[in-house]
Amino acid sequence: MPSTAAPVVIDLKFNADEVTAALVGAFPGRHVINRADPADAGRDLSQARYAVVWKSQPDLFDRAPNLDAVFSGGAGVDHVLTLPGLPDVPLVRFVDPTLTTRMSEWVVLQCLLHLRQHVRYEEQARRGVWAELSQPEARELTVGVMGLGVLGQDAARKLKTMGFTVIGWSRRAKTIEGIDTYDETGLDTFLARTDILVGLLPLTAETRGLFDAALFAKLSRKGPFGAPVFINAGRGGSQVEADIVASVRSGVLHGASLDVFSSEPLEADSPLWTLPNVIVTPHAAAASDVRALFRHVEKQIERHEAGLPFEHLVDRTAGY
Amino acid sequence: MPSTAAPVVIDLKFNADEVTAALVGAFPGRHVINRADPADAGRDLSQARYAVVWKSQPDLFDRAPNLDAVFSGGAGVDHVLTLPGLPDVPLVRFVDPTLTTRMSEWVVLQCLLHLRQHVRYEEQARRGVWAELSQPEARELTVGVMGLGVLGQDAARKLKTMGFTVIGWSRRAKTIEGIDTYDETGLDTFLARTDILVGLLPLTAETRGLFDAALFAKLSRKGPFGAPVFINAGRGGSQVEADIVASVRSGVLHGASLDVFSSEPLEADSPLWTLPNVIVTPHAAAASDVRALFRHVEKQIERHEAGLPFEHLVDRTAGY
Repeated sequence: MPSTAAPVVIDLKFNADEVTAALVGAFPGRHVINRADPADAGRDLSQARYAVVWKSQPDLFDRAPNLDAVFSGGAGVDHVLTLPGLPDVPLVRFVDPTLTTRMSEWVVLQCLLHLRQHVRYEEQARRGVWAELSQPEARELTVGVMGLGVLGQDAARKLKTMGFTVIGWSRRAKTIEGIDTYDETGLDTFLARTDILVGLLPLTAETRGLFDAALFAKLSRKGPFGAPVFINAGRGGSQVEADIVASVRSGVLHGASLDVFSSEPLEADSPLWTLPNVIVTPHAAAASDVRALFRHVEKQIERHEAGLPFEHLVDRTAGY
Repeated sequence: MPSTAAPVVIDLKFNADEVTAALVGAFPGRHVINRADPADAGRDLSQARYAVVWKSQPDLFDRAPNLDAVFSGGAGVDHVLTLPGLPDVPLVRFVDPTLTTRMSEWVVLQCLLHLRQHVRYEEQARRGVWAELSQPEARELTVGVMGLGVLGQDAARKLKTMGFTVIGWSRRAKTIEGIDTYDETGLDTFLARTDILVGLLPLTAETRGLFDAALFAKLSRKGPFGAPVFINAGRGGSQVEADIVASVRSGVLHGASLDVFSSEPLEADSPLWTLPNVIVTPHAAAASDVRALFRHVEKQIERHEAGLPFEHLVDRTAGY
């Protein structure tokens, strides 16, 4: 239908079929330009007021100079902040219960896999070996969650429900009921208590390369497995992969679960794929549900056009 | 120290070192006879008033005819009810937060493993393949928990916290906040809604061989994986293992997680060990914490000797 509502441009390097399907019925009454659709390739973007982006095409902001706001297609925004020509307009992150639930599913799964020694049991099963392993209880392990945004807080609460002892760290101090939290000044104390480290940090100048051998050496070795486990579902740029490989091989780390990598896709010959007690998933911990993304963008546009401020705004100075 | 308190006899086919370690400081002021200790082998049991048993020696009740109560070393009591010469005295099951927490760890882990397609991702990882799978969210799967005792209720609540849609079934109707429950008359309706079936049932005449091909055929095939998953941490006698093997091979079942087997240890050449998308653990879901067991028995003896009734009594007619 013809519409005078301000157009929205979609520039998402997602599965194209999923985006097309999700656009059916989305943004009612509004002109939508989907850059992944060949029919829209040469379309004039000068009237577009909103852009929804994930690894968007490099000419987007040249061709769409009149944007009121840019929406990230994911929880992280490092990929948006580095886009060439990003205009100085409000930048809105994707926050949605489906994204949060999915991330917590993955984080709790990985913590339980390590707690319950799944890799050792599997190895026994392949040989038909019936042998019970000495099994600590969840509360005997302290999970330290780094990054206490929406995702970190939800994961922390669910890990606590499962019985783990849970502590948290964030750059700026946060208070979470029933969980000891630390800020910048308490990092070493936090690490010394942590048996399973869960990284849910944004990628910023401060977090780049943060998870390295020096940090792993500061983690607790007093837990039931004698060495810590490193889990990362934040950003691959925060970890030094050569240090993970060396630390697992030397026993500084007992194991790891990684969903993110400094370069994605992870090369087929990376030693991480088959390192003992290391679980690798292909940046699949919390795939954005595209329908939920569009619902979220619709809601924020509605707020904006009703004169209300956007929610979930990115602080560009902090980088997240 | 010499004591006039009634003796307790321990007859547990557990790890002997763990039992010995847990007995240090246990049952203060009371004479303890540990049948696994060679020094106690010929000891007179005629004065023993309490027995703590798990697959006990067949002569126990002949040699200890003056028992006031028998305590099961685990949550299940089928192995006690079938003991030769079991006297007609109160039979107390083991209920303890550590047992409950451990069982829920295992159940939630198995449900998340299937939800998050862990076996497929592992298979990809072995080949260095980076490929994201279409991923339903927890709420799109209905987990049906059969058996709503202490263990089943705790597992159901934690599964719900993780985002799953959860329903429950028990022989006698039970009410759990936020969870649809069914009793005997609603079994088929319950099964038709269930995408992941979690068995936490006691072994009784009614449950023997319950989980068979006919029951699997009644489970939902409308879930995101097109076929149901069977998870059992109750008793192996409740399942027909040949039917599990055939159902997984034919696609009637999408997968399974089994901690219990009709004969344990599971034979090294059982096809279950290596069946695709089937996870096998060696009756390790919720190992009894022996210290916690003795604390529980001490507390119940104290109650009894103070004239209070035992808690967690077994209903012998129902068989659990």
